[in-house]
Amino acid sequence: MKNLLSAADLSVAEIDSVLDLAEEMAEVQSRPIKKLPALRGRTVVNLFFEDSTRTRSSFELAGKWLSADVINVSAKGSSVSKGESLRDTVLTIAAMGVDAMVIRHPASGAPAQAAAWTGIPVINAGDGTHEHPTQALLDAYAIRNHLRRGNHDDLAGARIAIVGDITHSRVARSNVALLRTLGAQVIMVAPPTLLPSGVDTWGVEISNDLDAVIDSVDIAMMLRVQRERMSGGYFPTPREYTVGYGLTRERLAAMKPGAAICHPGPMNRGLEISADAADAASSLILDQVAAGVAVRMSVLYHLLGGEEETT
Amino acid sequence: MKNLLSAADLSVAEIDSVLDLAEEMAEVQSRPIKKLPALRGRTVVNLFFEDSTRTRSSFELAGKWLSADVINVSAKGSSVSKGESLRDTVLTIAAMGVDAMVIRHPASGAPAQAAAWTGIPVINAGDGTHEHPTQALLDAYAIRNHLRRGNHDDLAGARIAIVGDITHSRVARSNVALLRTLGAQVIMVAPPTLLPSGVDTWGVEISNDLDAVIDSVDIAMMLRVQRERMSGGYFPTPREYTVGYGLTRERLAAMKPGAAICHPGPMNRGLEISADAADAASSLILDQVAAGVAVRMSVLYHLLGGEEETT
Amino acid sequence: MKNLLSAADLSVAEIDSVLDLAEEMAEVQSRPIKKLPALRGRTVVNLFFEDSTRTRSSFELAGKWLSADVINVSAKGSSVSKGESLRDTVLTIAAMGVDAMVIRHPASGAPAQAAAWTGIPVINAGDGTHEHPTQALLDAYAIRNHLRRGNHDDLAGARIAIVGDITHSRVARSNVALLRTLGAQVIMVAPPTLLPSGVDTWGVEISNDLDAVIDSVDIAMMLRVQRERMSGGYFPTPREYTVGYGLTRERLAAMKPGAAICHPGPMNRGLEISADAADAASSLILDQVAAGVAVRMSVLYHLLGGEEETT
Repeated sequence: MKNLLSAADLSVAEIDSVLDLAEEMAEVQSRPIKKLPALRGRTVVNLFFEDSTRTRSSFELAGKWLSADVINVSAKGSSVSKGESLRDTVLTIAAMGVDAMVIRHPASGAPAQAAAWTGIPVINAGDGTHEHPTQALLDAYAIRNHLRRGNHDDLAGARIAIVGDITHSRVARSNVALLRTLGAQVIMVAPPTLLPSGVDTWGVEISNDLDAVIDSVDIAMMLRVQRERMSGGYFPTPREYTVGYGLTRERLAAMKPGAAICHPGPMNRGLEISADAADAASSLILDQVAAGVAVRMSVLYHLLGGEEETT
Repeated sequence: MKNLLSAADLSVAEIDSVLDLAEEMAEVQSRPIKKLPALRGRTVVNLFFEDSTRTRSSFELAGKWLSADVINVSAKGSSVSKGESLRDTVLTIAAMGVDAMVIRHPASGAPAQAAAWTGIPVINAGDGTHEHPTQALLDAYAIRNHLRRGNHDDLAGARIAIVGDITHSRVARSNVALLRTLGAQVIMVAPPTLLPSGVDTWGVEISNDLDAVIDSVDIAMMLRVQRERMSGGYFPTPREYTVGYGLTRERLAAMKPGAAICHPGPMNRGLEISADAADAASSLILDQVAAGVAVRMSVLYHLLGGEEETT
Repeated sequence: MKNLLSAADLSVAEIDSVLDLAEEMAEVQSRPIKKLPALRGRTVVNLFFEDSTRTRSSFELAGKWLSADVINVSAKGSSVSKGESLRDTVLTIAAMGVDAMVIRHPASGAPAQAAAWTGIPVINAGDGTHEHPTQALLDAYAIRNHLRRGNHDDLAGARIAIVGDITHSRVARSNVALLRTLGAQVIMVAPPTLLPSGVDTWGVEISNDLDAVIDSVDIAMMLRVQRERMSGGYFPTPREYTVGYGLTRERLAAMKPGAAICHPGPMNRGLEISADAADAASSLILDQVAAGVAVRMSVLYHLLGGEEETT
């Protein structure tokens, strides 16, 4: 792996390699003293053109627990606000001598551009409506662990519903790509207005009826509703959304035994997910958060660890 | 000590333990090379829902000088601004695997809630109008050192005036609790409109007349006036405030020999404290700042150091 | 060196010492594992009263690669916004026990004041329209390396045009001082309205005609246009500016063989510099960025390294 730009780029072998090393990293994460020397003397920049506490903090912890130096650069108050082009910004950061960039950007494709311009390893931490590959990897990690506790071997054959605003969700796109590579059955559940054109070519089932689907899935992955989008005419009202597509107490009760719930956070409790569902024993939501650090440690090690090994 | 949520929770023995270790930390702080390995591999999150340069920096230095990893998370641009509940935010941060949280929050009780929800050590770095216990500890440290230079043994029997907007001051509440535990005589000096209801049950003297009090105290602790509150009808004008409750040059001159001045900062020079008083030889204000780092090193070590010792 | 407040303060020997050590630092910067133990246990504060991604990040990397602890303090959300004086802010930071302050401030002279008030080493990271000495040092470093590749020994005798808004440019002031000390021939090129009064006493050539100058210089150093200033009546329109003072494709072609281009960044492509010039083989712009970290490592070591050596 040279970069991590898209979940769609990853082979089964690459995914397994990331998830398997993440297991070892999770063991480190559970220790009282969390510190591996693996990336000592390497420098990772978190270059965030959009705010994200949880993703930025997760990468910062991942880097620091591997002994890397981590620098946070946010677009607010940066050269960007002074009219500098994206290309000049990333070339400037790269020229300082950093070893990897973690980039979040509102424009789809920005991290791939940065990788092409700079030649240094880039991790896509969310780009527009395109992809968020570490989210898909951490979801796969949390789901795999859940399935194994139920004596499943892996995700092949697991039935996973992704529910909500598919059109605008990079989390959905990355998960569809990764889960299909791993052989899961994926069902997109959304109102017709929130399904992107071309979704019929994604190779997934499509449904507009959550009630018809909820009792058959192993995993219900609820997407965050981005309230700022709800003013658009194609979006249902909050109340309509909850009635049609929220994981209510009733739908929680309809799920089959052993089925589990995912959400990438931050949650809108009472909108796309009820408090009952969020706090259910079958909720993997905090497992996902924990998995995020372990998976990002694994990804940073895959991108930066090898060269250093031989030094 | 499992958490540090309130100065009112602390016993004399706990306070002495924190202040005595802070003395050792102050010795480290005075070295050219400030670095103890004590908390290497431990991670502290500064989770600030209100801005505070000085408190955040002080905790960051304290953590780093003990070799901990320190992550700063500010509420601006965080999940919080996306509508996430406090409970979900703190559970998310905790799930990443951090070892302690330093929390500042505009709502009284938020740090205590966070401690109950997460089970990991929480330090209250100021919550609403409730408490700011490390401020009280650093004040006690600075005052104790001052008194000892004058051949006093400790704070028992020292006469300490806390002057200003008591109603809205978490600094006042924490200091009253701590100073009373240590046996000091505390006098609250404020206009009647800035004394909270129930203050007569706090076990302290109360006065509306700074001039009647100033010549009898060992310490005048001036509270910061929060200008944004001055629009309320119960608040005097700035000029009235200074005339009635400011530590003017005249009042400075009226203080008895050996008496000293505290202020938690940031100061409004010319409002609650004159430049003469702020810069007087008897001002402990910069001693308080220095004590802040040493006391916070001590508190972090008390909360996180023990477990690691045995690893 | 006790502080770095002004390029005008530096002797040839001091400049050579900084640039020569920067060469060693650049060698470290080029290693896969960038980490020297030189400043372990020392603490540097980046105290920025104005935003600057690139300068702040460059200092942060420089400090971390020398194993110092680095704390970032930004004026937004700081005590400053609560009305604290500059003097109280810097005395407070100093009282915590930090070893050096890197200060950017909109007021000329603020870093010098901070140095006088605190007595700890201060690096001026840009103060108003006054100076930005590390920028001049990194420019000299990048230009010296360029000249040496062309078999020049050093900057003495090199002909260097500084082009643009001289009046408001601290970069210009610091470069004039440093380049003259090193014996370079400096030409200021600007419209008459953007030349400060008294420029005739600076000991440099002055020109209003870039076309008359461009074919004779070894270095064209283009200054950033600060668009927010362009509303003032003394400023040409953007189009006029480009026509008169931009480094257009035509002017690039007129430069003599071996001549090179500098820009402190962030660039306004198409305004003061064309894309052809910015991306030309003769552009030193990314070399300047890389030099920035090496030079700042050298400066930090000069200010903080000696004392620690003997510990």
